[in-house]
Amino acid sequence: MSIQPFSHTHRVTYAECTVGNHVYYGRYLDLLEEARGELFRALGIPLTELQVNGTLFPVTECQLRYKAPARYDEVLAIEVSISELNRIKIVFGYRIQTGGKLILEGSTTHVATGLDEKPKRMPMDLLERLERFKDGLGNAA
Amino acid sequence: MSIQPFSHTHRVTYAECTVGNHVYYGRYLDLLEEARGELFRALGIPLTELQVNGTLFPVTECQLRYKAPARYDEVLAIEVSISELNRIKIVFGYRIQTGGKLILEGSTTHVATGLDEKPKRMPMDLLERLERFKDGLGNAA
Amino acid sequence: MSIQPFSHTHRVTYAECTVGNHVYYGRYLDLLEEARGELFRALGIPLTELQVNGTLFPVTECQLRYKAPARYDEVLAIEVSISELNRIKIVFGYRIQTGGKLILEGSTTHVATGLDEKPKRMPMDLLERLERFKDGLGNAA
Amino acid sequence: MSIQPFSHTHRVTYAECTVGNHVYYGRYLDLLEEARGELFRALGIPLTELQVNGTLFPVTECQLRYKAPARYDEVLAIEVSISELNRIKIVFGYRIQTGGKLILEGSTTHVATGLDEKPKRMPMDLLERLERFKDGLGNAA
Repeated sequence: MSIQPFSHTHRVTYAECTVGNHVYYGRYLDLLEEARGELFRALGIPLTELQVNGTLFPVTECQLRYKAPARYDEVLAIEVSISELNRIKIVFGYRIQTGGKLILEGSTTHVATGLDEKPKRMPMDLLERLERFKDGLGNAA
Repeated sequence: MSIQPFSHTHRVTYAECTVGNHVYYGRYLDLLEEARGELFRALGIPLTELQVNGTLFPVTECQLRYKAPARYDEVLAIEVSISELNRIKIVFGYRIQTGGKLILEGSTTHVATGLDEKPKRMPMDLLERLERFKDGLGNAA
Repeated sequence: MSIQPFSHTHRVTYAECTVGNHVYYGRYLDLLEEARGELFRALGIPLTELQVNGTLFPVTECQLRYKAPARYDEVLAIEVSISELNRIKIVFGYRIQTGGKLILEGSTTHVATGLDEKPKRMPMDLLERLERFKDGLGNAA
Repeated sequence: MSIQPFSHTHRVTYAECTVGNHVYYGRYLDLLEEARGELFRALGIPLTELQVNGTLFPVTECQLRYKAPARYDEVLAIEVSISELNRIKIVFGYRIQTGGKLILEGSTTHVATGLDEKPKRMPMDLLERLERFKDGLGNAA
């Protein structure tokens, strides 16, 4: 009965690396954004469509724990799951691995807002679709 | 008897902004790195000098709380202070403000390692200099 | 008998966009790097392998002509071809399109060097493999 | 009677570097943007003010020639000058140096547009102020 997290892969480029041949600590947030975007698309509701309809999900908080450096050319498996969900808030949990090695664990907290950046409830339909990825990573995030 | 945090200013560029005219959530980590680098320089021990002498400070953890969006061309005041410090670990606390408005609060945790990426004790002299910024932000981070 | 350019696709993220909802002018160089890396991989000689064997390809020049803005979430088709090639120099030509619309044309010039950043001849085997993509974009770049 | 180019300094961060400890080839465009922004500010007309009044300067072309790698912590002197100027077009020329060593030469071409991204004439007052930096780098760009 376990729920599978959403998974996205990404190959590390030189643009993402820094001195010492590892991914720069801030670039992981770019990768998490890329994976979240793919999760919404996989649910049939791309973020662009949500935006056109007046719903944004700005980040209010993030936490990252760096476990091992990722190197140029490595293929990263980025797992995304949802640890908390209601109509005004989503907490995503993440785990990045490469070749079975854990690179990063983390979470990002988002609130639903209108285009005016004020809080609003997300569409019921979206909430139901997001439920699919709830708790996939359990208490990891 | 209160200790002043270290302060660094940065003007927001287009390169740092994203759709909706605000700084992209991952770019704040670039700004915190820039401010940390200036703190070490202000102490008379630039990170390059530490690296030449075999000490690195990789990040093991970060936490960011986004309070308000920063916009293109705004001048950000980035305050850095140290909330935890011993010979193998530093926890920096940060507060970014612009025009009296709080933009971001956060912290990053670093461990001292050698060039082989293995933990080692930082030089005693460095520890003493870093003490100057200890607790500047109190329990904020 | 026309030669096909190498093609790589990339979906635009928020991290790559700036104010006004278009890809930031400098991020295209990240995308071109990503596409070049995939071209070398497609030839069976990833850049990491070349580096291990002591050959680097630093950029000495680039030219970009921006034709239309690319937006968040668009899928970009990045075509790469080779307009000039010998044992010490490669000139890549690029064309980025989305939905039949031309976004960018450009070129980058690279020299072969050793790990000491001094010029050296690239392996004969690599030169022969790269020939496959020679002139694919004709005089476009 | 020689005209001085506008000069801006920037210290290289880890965020801007890549594998091999040098600035990533695409990040120079970030630095040129930063320097251009400071030039407009120095003329008393920040880009934000121009934007509010309905004038944008999108890039249509750029050329960069990489002369030597810039390293972490180096202070770069970024010189900006104007090699071509009329009411609908500006060509900026750039030269980046550190410690007397030439790092990069380049140029960017911009057209004046309205917020609708259609060409328009820039304000006469702005044109006159920009004249101050015309030809400062001579035929370098």
